[in-house]
Amino acid sequence: MITNFDELISKVKECSKKTLAVAVAQDDAVLEAVHEAKVQGIADAILVGDEGKIREIADTLKIDLSDYQIIHEPDDWQAALKAVKLAHDGVADMYMKGLMDTKSFLKSILDKEVGLRTGKPLSHVAVFEVEGIRQLLFLTDVAFITYPTLEDKVHIIENTVKVAHACGLECPKVAPLAAVEVVNPKMPATLDAAELTKMNEEGKITGCIVDGPLSMDIAIDPEAAAHKGATGRKVAGDADILLFPDIHAGNLVYKTLVHTAKVENGCILTGTKVPAILTSRSDSFRTKVNSIALAAVVAEGLKNE
Amino acid sequence: MITNFDELISKVKECSKKTLAVAVAQDDAVLEAVHEAKVQGIADAILVGDEGKIREIADTLKIDLSDYQIIHEPDDWQAALKAVKLAHDGVADMYMKGLMDTKSFLKSILDKEVGLRTGKPLSHVAVFEVEGIRQLLFLTDVAFITYPTLEDKVHIIENTVKVAHACGLECPKVAPLAAVEVVNPKMPATLDAAELTKMNEEGKITGCIVDGPLSMDIAIDPEAAAHKGATGRKVAGDADILLFPDIHAGNLVYKTLVHTAKVENGCILTGTKVPAILTSRSDSFRTKVNSIALAAVVAEGLKNE
Repeated sequence: MITNFDELISKVKECSKKTLAVAVAQDDAVLEAVHEAKVQGIADAILVGDEGKIREIADTLKIDLSDYQIIHEPDDWQAALKAVKLAHDGVADMYMKGLMDTKSFLKSILDKEVGLRTGKPLSHVAVFEVEGIRQLLFLTDVAFITYPTLEDKVHIIENTVKVAHACGLECPKVAPLAAVEVVNPKMPATLDAAELTKMNEEGKITGCIVDGPLSMDIAIDPEAAAHKGATGRKVAGDADILLFPDIHAGNLVYKTLVHTAKVENGCILTGTKVPAILTSRSDSFRTKVNSIALAAVVAEGLKNE
Repeated sequence: MITNFDELISKVKECSKKTLAVAVAQDDAVLEAVHEAKVQGIADAILVGDEGKIREIADTLKIDLSDYQIIHEPDDWQAALKAVKLAHDGVADMYMKGLMDTKSFLKSILDKEVGLRTGKPLSHVAVFEVEGIRQLLFLTDVAFITYPTLEDKVHIIENTVKVAHACGLECPKVAPLAAVEVVNPKMPATLDAAELTKMNEEGKITGCIVDGPLSMDIAIDPEAAAHKGATGRKVAGDADILLFPDIHAGNLVYKTLVHTAKVENGCILTGTKVPAILTSRSDSFRTKVNSIALAAVVAEGLKNE
């Protein structure tokens, strides 16, 4: 079981070397992270984009590209299609966004011919190592699905459980979060949480333990769980997967963690044929490298499925 | 301008001594905090409840009650009514919950004869000092109003701006938060945020600067705001008041801060004739003392209005 990003990166190095296809690779922050991942032995990369610009950035950053495969394609959309096709065809194990907007990147993922559709809805997972918390926390969905329905939440859990399994958690604990830990008919999020718990008990959601609704303190803090007498619950202070009621709650908690707590984190898009990485420019260098490592672990997990 | 709880407590000591009315005071955790507030010179207290039980707890905690006014009332509801009447009549400056459930405490606040109604809706504010953030953060509403309408949000801002003014912020910056910092018609929270901003520009919400929608990073992190090119916004990394789209988002962020970041915090109920304190048993001793200090500062502010 992986409990931090150092362990995650160690695990990646034990697996067969993975390859990253980078769409529109002429992005300094992305190239820097991709190179660090290569130097650390996390993943190799195929850079698809404007070769002249890629080499120019590499020169500035003093990155030696002699060991990289570069596919020259000056048109951004064509570069995305070529990069995603590498992942689609199994030449690459992961797909990463370079200098392009998120909308076009998603469009390439959803392309019917060369994209990464599996027939299942996509969802986003942000994995956090937080000082003071023993387990990794898998936050979902904080960036992609805005107002998930009950059905969406089932898919989000399924997608995220696969990621947790890939990280060595045999039976992750899932906490459908809310402001309160009891069902309140006036709060739809608590009704969904109870329903997801029931579906898990009935074997309709497998590979994990679901227990909700839960408040954040009972989900992640064993002392708070004990203090509130929640020790009889199936998830009490030891939640792995934090399922948010909507994107506002998820994104606000996600950014609160990044900007106020001591954390390491990485994010990927799941539900795709191979993991996709769509870090933004505001993500730190470490977050980008961690995301590549997370994607590599999940790629290995999908291969072994 | 107060930027942390040490300064807040110093400010309280400069004001005329405030008095706390405690409803059903036979609660060890509450008595301990009330006594600490007295020892520190933050506030005196009138203890309303079962005198025998109050004295028993005080003995156990080695608290000398000779300097306290105690009103013996063994019936809990009658004790609440007597305590809230002290605040209603101006004998006490603040009202605090002892060994009673929140629902009964709120009922006493809303009592038409002896309660603390002002005709305006009540709201809750949680004030945080967070390591790494220069200003105090006023989170609202994380505990009381579940799904605020636009009108509720106006009242929440008005209530919270008064609290911020009492803390010496002449013109607090208000960030109506969302997952994104741009208006998205598919996300009602962003529409409300834009409307609140407009109402502030038109002088319908005064005493503050409102700028939303804002994501958490742009609201509280000046570096993130600069990185995202948000420096032209009226609130960019220096938000004082964080207005949440609903109670799930607010409560989940609130508990994330408490359980993962290095913080000091205190909470009160506002929109009442005098500030009310309804900390829960799971709140720490420091949070209870901080809440009394916060209430005392706000009581002084209301007196000077």
